[in-house]
Amino acid sequence: MKNFILLDENAVYFEAKFSCDNVIFLSLNNDNYFITDARYTTEATELVKNCEVIESSNLIQTAKEILIKNKIKKIVFDPNDFKYSTYINITQDLKTKFVAIPSFSKQKRIIKSDEEIKLLKKAAKLGRAGFKDLAKFIRKNGYKQTEQFLFFKGIEKMSQSGKLDLSFDPIIAINENAAKPHALPTSKKLKKDDLILVDAGVKYKRYCSDRTCVTSANFEKLSFKRDQKFKNKKHQKIYDLVYKAQLNAIENAKVGMKASQIDALTRNVIEKAGYGKYFIHSTGHGVGLDIHEFPNINSRSDVIIEDNMVFTIEPGIYLPKEFGVRIEDTVVMKNGKAVIL
Amino acid sequence: MKNFILLDENAVYFEAKFSCDNVIFLSLNNDNYFITDARYTTEATELVKNCEVIESSNLIQTAKEILIKNKIKKIVFDPNDFKYSTYINITQDLKTKFVAIPSFSKQKRIIKSDEEIKLLKKAAKLGRAGFKDLAKFIRKNGYKQTEQFLFFKGIEKMSQSGKLDLSFDPIIAINENAAKPHALPTSKKLKKDDLILVDAGVKYKRYCSDRTCVTSANFEKLSFKRDQKFKNKKHQKIYDLVYKAQLNAIENAKVGMKASQIDALTRNVIEKAGYGKYFIHSTGHGVGLDIHEFPNINSRSDVIIEDNMVFTIEPGIYLPKEFGVRIEDTVVMKNGKAVIL
Repeated sequence: MKNFILLDENAVYFEAKFSCDNVIFLSLNNDNYFITDARYTTEATELVKNCEVIESSNLIQTAKEILIKNKIKKIVFDPNDFKYSTYINITQDLKTKFVAIPSFSKQKRIIKSDEEIKLLKKAAKLGRAGFKDLAKFIRKNGYKQTEQFLFFKGIEKMSQSGKLDLSFDPIIAINENAAKPHALPTSKKLKKDDLILVDAGVKYKRYCSDRTCVTSANFEKLSFKRDQKFKNKKHQKIYDLVYKAQLNAIENAKVGMKASQIDALTRNVIEKAGYGKYFIHSTGHGVGLDIHEFPNINSRSDVIIEDNMVFTIEPGIYLPKEFGVRIEDTVVMKNGKAVIL
Repeated sequence: MKNFILLDENAVYFEAKFSCDNVIFLSLNNDNYFITDARYTTEATELVKNCEVIESSNLIQTAKEILIKNKIKKIVFDPNDFKYSTYINITQDLKTKFVAIPSFSKQKRIIKSDEEIKLLKKAAKLGRAGFKDLAKFIRKNGYKQTEQFLFFKGIEKMSQSGKLDLSFDPIIAINENAAKPHALPTSKKLKKDDLILVDAGVKYKRYCSDRTCVTSANFEKLSFKRDQKFKNKKHQKIYDLVYKAQLNAIENAKVGMKASQIDALTRNVIEKAGYGKYFIHSTGHGVGLDIHEFPNINSRSDVIIEDNMVFTIEPGIYLPKEFGVRIEDTVVMKNGKAVIL
């Protein structure tokens, strides 16, 4: 791609190794421009790679001037990355043709470098430490606490009291609330032997972790390990089924498969057991600078899986008004196979 | 306005008294449509006012069908509220003309109803309680804690450990970091007699509070009251000057003035004392469902101030590499004058 423009903070970071919340990035005939305001130019000048930093109090105007000066005829942009108002401002009175290619930056980022995989591993490690701290808290102090309070404690433990950014607001859901894939915390209180679902992740140097665990409120032994014992037999049955589906995908995912074939590895197990209609989302998504990247692991995707792709495997069964189970790990494809990060 | 379309969650809430994160709202010849997906239709049907709720798995397609069915020739949209990709999808193969009017929903919301002012008052009260709890924490446990940790405690105390949503991520900044109006928390530790700036707010039934206080790390007496004593004489001098500027605006703001005249009430005091070039932002902004609404209180705004407008008055002086002081309260115009919420 000869000429492209980016506004998205993570997309810019991928190109420039630095980013901020007010930037226009231009790549024109392999010359890169990082246009930002006075608050960020000092740091940007120190940290960007292979970019000219340009200070401006009107980023759009400056970008237009650079496009004119370089006589750019055509430039690629992501229509999801631009507000309509920004598009109108930047294209007005400009001869450059703006060509919309959705998600072209995410497409570039679909295969991770070894360096990126190191950062994703570190994020996963920090995420696991957060889950461990949260388990300890629930064991000791979780009894009769509300989902809202446990949600807050989830933020505290995952972020190490504010030291780390979170990949997203955690989901902490009890019993029937866990039957909603994107549950918001309520004033419902945790009781003994309740089912608890926790979906959470942290960032390390901007790279995300993502993991979902389900356990039962056994206040002596509670932990987020993958092998779980439930007093409630239906909880156990559904958990074991989702776990079997997830293991099937992790053990049998191979480089060269289509993403849809990996989706089938989880879905077939759940469908055979008669719970197909309760598995209401896709098997997974890529993870990187954004929490949702490529490849999408769903029943319609023909993307061929390659080494150094990083994605989640997260089958789930959601029984409305009863409970839900989702088991999610982030894997990297290495030497042809999936390895949990 | 006869026909308009909204995507923004708060703009929709204002019209429908209910909202969610996946909605298209249409107002066509005074008939209102709330288009959302299956996750939200039950709640929407219970809670919306004067709207038909329509369930859809493709919101844009459904909106287009309604526009066609009602033979709508022209509809107003906010170009800041639409991604470019959404604009393209919704206008494609449609005869309806989309007319861009920036911020038309915020314009409608510039004068608050008495009911809205009650909610804003309640939010302000909850916000003050959060500042009080945070002051107590810093008094007892703040010594040698990092900004990052204090930032996290700010979230905890303001949100009542997750019970309340925050208006925005709080700012907690010590000394030279407070010289940046939008400081991010660092690993800098709080020492005795340091200057601390806290900018924070909470939401009550979606309505925001917003307040900024500055105090000094006196671990016996620390509080966020408006009258402050500093050991450092320069801190005291600048604090007293900003306070004087803010009081001047609160006491002399009158209905019928232009917003720029209220801006001048703070700016003139600071300029006369020779610190004009260190007051690097406008005097305030409207507050409501969004943390930034109309009226803008700046030197260029001709908007006439009216009763039931709600906005911040927040002059500041920022001395680079030394420290910064901003004092912010949210006021409502009542019986011609400004009253702190």
